[in-house]
Amino acid sequence: MERYDIAIIGSGPAGISAALNAKIRNKSFIIFGSKQISNKLALAPHINNYLGFSAIKGKDLLKNFQNHMKEMDIEIVEERINNVYSMGDYFTLMVNQKMYEARTVILATGIEYTKPLEGEEKFLGKGVGYCATCDAPLYRGKEVTIVSYSKEGEEEANYVSELANNVNYIPMYRGEFKLNDSINLIEDKPKEICGETKVEKVVLKSGNELKADGVFLLKNAVPPTQLVPGLEIEDGHIKVDRLMRTNIKGCFAAGDCVGKPYQYIKSAGEGNIAALSAVNYLAEKDF
Amino acid sequence: MERYDIAIIGSGPAGISAALNAKIRNKSFIIFGSKQISNKLALAPHINNYLGFSAIKGKDLLKNFQNHMKEMDIEIVEERINNVYSMGDYFTLMVNQKMYEARTVILATGIEYTKPLEGEEKFLGKGVGYCATCDAPLYRGKEVTIVSYSKEGEEEANYVSELANNVNYIPMYRGEFKLNDSINLIEDKPKEICGETKVEKVVLKSGNELKADGVFLLKNAVPPTQLVPGLEIEDGHIKVDRLMRTNIKGCFAAGDCVGKPYQYIKSAGEGNIAALSAVNYLAEKDF
Ligand SMILES: Cc1cc2nc3c(=O)[nH]c(=O)nc-3n(C[C@H](O)[C@H](O)[C@H](O)COP(=O)(O)OP(=O)(O)OC[C@H]3O[C@@H](n4cnc5c(N)ncnc54)[C@H](O)[C@@H]3O)c2cc1C
Ligand SMILES: Cc1cc2nc3c(=O)[nH]c(=O)nc-3n(C[C@H](O)[C@H](O)[C@H](O)COP(=O)(O)OP(=O)(O)OC[C@H]3O[C@@H](n4cnc5c(N)ncnc54)[C@H](O)[C@@H]3O)c2cc1C
Repeated sequence: MERYDIAIIGSGPAGISAALNAKIRNKSFIIFGSKQISNKLALAPHINNYLGFSAIKGKDLLKNFQNHMKEMDIEIVEERINNVYSMGDYFTLMVNQKMYEARTVILATGIEYTKPLEGEEKFLGKGVGYCATCDAPLYRGKEVTIVSYSKEGEEEANYVSELANNVNYIPMYRGEFKLNDSINLIEDKPKEICGETKVEKVVLKSGNELKADGVFLLKNAVPPTQLVPGLEIEDGHIKVDRLMRTNIKGCFAAGDCVGKPYQYIKSAGEGNIAALSAVNYLAEKDF
Repeated sequence: MERYDIAIIGSGPAGISAALNAKIRNKSFIIFGSKQISNKLALAPHINNYLGFSAIKGKDLLKNFQNHMKEMDIEIVEERINNVYSMGDYFTLMVNQKMYEARTVILATGIEYTKPLEGEEKFLGKGVGYCATCDAPLYRGKEVTIVSYSKEGEEEANYVSELANNVNYIPMYRGEFKLNDSINLIEDKPKEICGETKVEKVVLKSGNELKADGVFLLKNAVPPTQLVPGLEIEDGHIKVDRLMRTNIKGCFAAGDCVGKPYQYIKSAGEGNIAALSAVNYLAEKDF
């Protein structure tokens, strides 16, 4: 298996800025995310504070970013990383059934603005999870509800439906849904996750209830501690120093995931620093 | 005298990014520097790592920055701040004979890449200084040599020549020089500053010597401790936390002056953070 110098997780301004610098520094690298860069960019109506572009629409700034990637010949790999494990002097990155290896990792996953659901934190690990494909085997023959904040959840739901007895899918986004016939599409919103010692049901806004052994919340960004076990957190964000180093050697982070203010150019600037710190780390380690 | 909410010192990517955010947040502010933004930008042949602009020439990126300033109706005040004094809950900024006041200060002065001259550090305060107009009165009727790294030094030299007995001007840049007739333009470079307990002469590359009671080194950026007495320094840079706060309350810093890597988008990102931190500080203080 190829072992990359740098694996970048996330394709927002932080991740792609890191990728530019990894490329310029001639490192072997891979960047995971979406070719659409970031939802948060596509959605912004009017951006005034990204130095160099005055009063630009989010989707136009997005095009400039995509163009820059293209000119530099950088391809974003459309996969979601579910787990990152430190193996000593390298990392293993898990994507559903697949695996990648890299000497350094840059976390640029953004943050989830949505508030946790009632019961989410209480039942985390007791029926509540963030990666359906990872834990699906636990729910063979059982009742599963999937709450998904993006289209990518559909594929996960389809996979789970092959194992579980019954899958309910609650989309938190609009669009067309490509789901296996056996999946129940729920046109309602979740209100609360309930149970005694573990999840038993999901109560919906309408008052209806869904029996559930497992509930998966597929967010745009999973909590970083879930993604990288052992990662140190401070005030809800990944703790980094001014060189964007986390507490785990070889693991760097940048952008919204490391703290406020949540801003494009702050994220891009931190991605630049993180990449150069990774480059320096590789040089010191003499990889 | 108007007391600004925010005074920004320096007009490179860090300073102007801070200015954008001060403007958007509706603060009263003033930014000091050069309408040409930054020499370091004008000089860059080819920039690949400023996200959004691929393979752009420094002078073209500069134009985009100037344009952004214009669209946001931000004027850069062409003055060099020589000293910043904390007055408790506001700051006084000194420009030669003039003064400004502000509740918060953002230092975005860049760094000086040039190595110190031989003797520079040894004789600092013993005849060597960084602000000719500040100390000129000390050299009434004496011999002064001015080593200037930018055109702005000419005005300072002209002022000093009205007081000193004799002024030698050594330009470290190319161009036409607008100097009073009494000033000797030296077409040579300085090699060493010599003396016993205080400055006595400047030895030139050619071997020639200039008798001197005072030597002024007019660099693009003065050392930050010179600019702001009491500022904490770490590894040669202004010490800041992740919110770009220095050790002095109400004083923030961003860009090359706070540390490596020396990069445009890192500087712009930090300018963005510093401005928002200043805005938060003003809100907390209830100014
Ligand atoms: C409507 C709106 C308007 C805004 N307006 C402004 C503005 O005017 N000015 C400003 O400065 N900021 C603005 N912001 C904030 C700005 O969008 C964010 O600060 C910025 O996008 C953060 O960049 P990032 O790279 O850290 O993360 P994000 O942009 O959130 O990108 C993270 C990317 O990583 C992907 N990802 C996450 N986890 C994984 C994983 N495990 N595997 C693979 N990929 C993953 C995500 O899908 C996403 O594509 C706005 C935000 C919104 C929502
Ligand atoms: C030739 C060259 C090529 C480069 N190429 C790249 C590149 O490809 N990519 C990259 O990311 N970086 C590059 N850099 C680095 C980049 O130029 C710097 O990191 C960046 O300019 C730093 O921005 P700044 O705002 O901190 O400071 P600066 O750009 O140095 O700006 C500081 C400004 O403040 C003014 N100032 C200072 N003191 C005062 C005062 N007391 N009063 C008023 N004004 C003051 C200065 O005159 C100056 O205009 C290059 C640098 C050089 C020299």
